[in-house]
Amino acid sequence: MKNIVVVGLGLIGGSLASALKGFEGYTVMGVDNDRDIRLYAEEKSIADIVTDDTKYAVAHGDIVFCCLHPHGILEFLQAHKQGFLPGALVTDVCGVKSAVLEAAKELPDTVDFIGSHPMAGKERGGIQNSSKTLFRGAHYIITPRKESKPENIALLERIAAYIGARDVIQTEPERHDAVIAYTSQMMHIIAAAICDAPNLFDCQGFEGGSFRDCTRVAALEPELWTQLLSMNAAPLTETLRRFEGNLRAYREVIEARDDVALMKKLRDSSERKKRMHIEYRRGDDAVL
Amino acid sequence: MKNIVVVGLGLIGGSLASALKGFEGYTVMGVDNDRDIRLYAEEKSIADIVTDDTKYAVAHGDIVFCCLHPHGILEFLQAHKQGFLPGALVTDVCGVKSAVLEAAKELPDTVDFIGSHPMAGKERGGIQNSSKTLFRGAHYIITPRKESKPENIALLERIAAYIGARDVIQTEPERHDAVIAYTSQMMHIIAAAICDAPNLFDCQGFEGGSFRDCTRVAALEPELWTQLLSMNAAPLTETLRRFEGNLRAYREVIEARDDVALMKKLRDSSERKKRMHIEYRRGDDAVL
Repeated sequence: MKNIVVVGLGLIGGSLASALKGFEGYTVMGVDNDRDIRLYAEEKSIADIVTDDTKYAVAHGDIVFCCLHPHGILEFLQAHKQGFLPGALVTDVCGVKSAVLEAAKELPDTVDFIGSHPMAGKERGGIQNSSKTLFRGAHYIITPRKESKPENIALLERIAAYIGARDVIQTEPERHDAVIAYTSQMMHIIAAAICDAPNLFDCQGFEGGSFRDCTRVAALEPELWTQLLSMNAAPLTETLRRFEGNLRAYREVIEARDDVALMKKLRDSSERKKRMHIEYRRGDDAVL
Repeated sequence: MKNIVVVGLGLIGGSLASALKGFEGYTVMGVDNDRDIRLYAEEKSIADIVTDDTKYAVAHGDIVFCCLHPHGILEFLQAHKQGFLPGALVTDVCGVKSAVLEAAKELPDTVDFIGSHPMAGKERGGIQNSSKTLFRGAHYIITPRKESKPENIALLERIAAYIGARDVIQTEPERHDAVIAYTSQMMHIIAAAICDAPNLFDCQGFEGGSFRDCTRVAALEPELWTQLLSMNAAPLTETLRRFEGNLRAYREVIEARDDVALMKKLRDSSERKKRMHIEYRRGDDAVL
């Protein structure tokens, strides 16, 4: 019998465990320190087996998914580096990858660590909000090491397909973090900063789809996002500076009442968006 | 027989005409200069009557909805100010209100002008994208004048309810424009500026829900939005400056690696968002 161990049954771990049930005859073992979470997981059959014994689970995991917060992942790898099954595939779900891959260098050669970042989430965390359909239509990014075995990459690709991901994108940790600083982290900071406007609560009744969409992810989990942003501070700072410049350029043409320049800028930006739009409609329309 | 005249059958005018059909026994008369648009409107029964004769339509309109672009609305009011039926209720759908209400001062006393701003739209304009369900769940903002008749305000409220709007918000043009600079116009500029990043097209495969949502409205109509932003330049500039400051404050704590300050900021912003979130869930959940 082969086991997939999911460590940490929050939104992502809980969703992953339930989405993985039945995968190629593996038993899904869910691990969490919190008794209420374990009871919930058992009641809802989130995993085939639920336990608080991380050491035992790790020692029996052919595949181990670490679904803790970023700092928790680093601590987990350090604490259990000698405890993995020889030949195990170990992965994570963290939204930053350089720091995780750096920590994974401590693992023995008998363990194959490949970073994962399934690009899915919800504004509300916790196992109560987990869903086996969370990953449907989402990109699943992996960052293998040079030494990673092709059969383990292929295994992760089958897992991604099984949980409903749209595709598997393979990249290097540094590139992942630079791009994610833009496509994900900056969106969260923008959403948060929009909500800092002193007149936010006077705007009731004046919000349309654009406001709802741009601020949706502001309802984030502060601890998680402090870790994610802080671990990616250098690329993120650069990305934010660049955006500040692009935003200021808009404000300046509006302030100067230069309608010709404003129209040109709007035409350029909207054409870029439309080109991007067409490209990401190639896949699953539903996740647009 | 009473008539509702909808001047300009684009996305908003077309949607409004079809949503208004059957309202309290009024005949819906759609007006457009473009032959292809009229043919489309006739074929799809967007209105009860379709014509290119603005002068005739205006002279027979008990209610006149001007659904042209902002400059078009100002020109329309100027051109037809002597042509309205005495006692007519005249309104518009423009996303800025001070300039429109200023132009409406030229109308004779026999005409009751009340500004409208139904907060609905789509990334793709034109009658082909119009839909009688476009206004469902949207806020419908009105800006009556001091002289506006209560029965005309009540009539607009019944119209808003008939087309499916969530509620009717009554306000002054200046307040409308100041708030809209924040809740709508700035969201469009943010979305556009995000797409100005030089690495936009390298991000294929790395975009999640936050990126799709924050950039959705960047696919805007440049002519329309140049007019809207330009007509509201002063409040918009102030709103953008304030946001630039709030965004810079985030970048500075990240750059300084000050995780304590970053966590505090994220906690504050997300709590503000959650309070706002709860408030706008009072109404129709579906439009969230």
